[in-house]
Amino acid sequence: MPRYKLTLEYDGTPFSGWQRQSEAPSVQAAVEEAAMKFCNADAPIEVQCAGRTDAGVHARGQVAHVDLPERPSNAIVRGLNALMNHQPISVLSAELVADDFNARFDAQSRHYLYRITNRKGQPALDKNRSWHVHKPLDLAAMNTAAQLLVGRHDFTSFRAGDCQAQSPVKTLDYLEVKARERNPQAVMIKCGAKSFLHHQVRNMVGTLVYVGIGKWPVSRVAEALEAKDRRAGGPMAPAHGLYLMRVDY
Amino acid sequence: MPRYKLTLEYDGTPFSGWQRQSEAPSVQAAVEEAAMKFCNADAPIEVQCAGRTDAGVHARGQVAHVDLPERPSNAIVRGLNALMNHQPISVLSAELVADDFNARFDAQSRHYLYRITNRKGQPALDKNRSWHVHKPLDLAAMNTAAQLLVGRHDFTSFRAGDCQAQSPVKTLDYLEVKARERNPQAVMIKCGAKSFLHHQVRNMVGTLVYVGIGKWPVSRVAEALEAKDRRAGGPMAPAHGLYLMRVDY
Repeated sequence: MPRYKLTLEYDGTPFSGWQRQSEAPSVQAAVEEAAMKFCNADAPIEVQCAGRTDAGVHARGQVAHVDLPERPSNAIVRGLNALMNHQPISVLSAELVADDFNARFDAQSRHYLYRITNRKGQPALDKNRSWHVHKPLDLAAMNTAAQLLVGRHDFTSFRAGDCQAQSPVKTLDYLEVKARERNPQAVMIKCGAKSFLHHQVRNMVGTLVYVGIGKWPVSRVAEALEAKDRRAGGPMAPAHGLYLMRVDY
Repeated sequence: MPRYKLTLEYDGTPFSGWQRQSEAPSVQAAVEEAAMKFCNADAPIEVQCAGRTDAGVHARGQVAHVDLPERPSNAIVRGLNALMNHQPISVLSAELVADDFNARFDAQSRHYLYRITNRKGQPALDKNRSWHVHKPLDLAAMNTAAQLLVGRHDFTSFRAGDCQAQSPVKTLDYLEVKARERNPQAVMIKCGAKSFLHHQVRNMVGTLVYVGIGKWPVSRVAEALEAKDRRAGGPMAPAHGLYLMRVDY
């Protein structure tokens, strides 16, 4: 069967994350089940993604590959979406790719957005879509601190204990903190890299928020990075503000 | 008791609309109940808003007035929000105003946003937040047609049958159709006026979508307006794409 590259959007709220688990709903299981029904397959079909998002993390542009019977792209998009109509998952496109295309290993860069609602009142429309930080954030200080993390570094201080990457050295291409135009309360933290350590984005965001509320001076972010010790980094930001936006190949 | 001007955000999905109803949950009832608890009041407290949104319509900046015991603004925001923590309603600000301030009658302009997701795949993250139109929209044609509606006109062709306005003549200050920067699938229709007829925004949007999918030429929008007959207007767009964004005084 030919291989297809799928681009997916999903609301991470009801899922235990991308990865299939025996006892909890996952995005992977939902897409694999739809693919099996689409093929009338008896055997399991594997769907592999570019970035295995954690529980509660959203995607606007997750990429995955799957082998399916040859059909027009539109038919695959419509078919899978009809089969996942009851799930907050949407197939945005399906593209025929080479048989050896691998969504995870061929990815050249991954782009994330972290959303913060910075105001007194809790989010009503953006519940589960944005981290509510009620103390005023100094975005300029956060962005200055962010630039200390850009580049090739040992990110051990921002790495989850269970991270399975072979090396803690990664190259962070960009990390920007700014408010949405004409809405200073809608804070957006954007970053991109070839790959990230487990929880790296959320740990960087939590650290930057420490700077934003004035708990840490900017210089302490450089010290945290230098320490190469998770205990020197700031706290982990919650999952529900994080979005996998795009994967480049 | 002094009067406060409240600015509110809410997710319209679970409500039968702003207006209190005997058998269905409403935003007004939720805010009035919170105000009563805040005051330890025995008698009902009335909360009046600037724009009585329909069932499913959202607000990012609804304005309402209510008489409450004198307290610092922050205490009112925190107190009401704590009492509405279980509801998708958030008080963004509370401002002491003159005793005769009236959220509805003193409003100088109301600003709405209508969101459309224009792509094949159904919205996953924006379910109940954006109208899904899967046929490609010609935004330039829609925006050209929109300009035919701007200005002072008899909007009978875009008016709900149950509309209680004394006159169908309104002045539409602006009506713009464009995609979000760097995301052509996220269509935003913005409009503003001192006041609108019932369902006017949704009826205008439905009509513009007829133009966008090529079902109507641009000129037919002028004909529809001229007809002064609801049957000459296009269909009504669904409630869940509409947001009351701001009210000016």
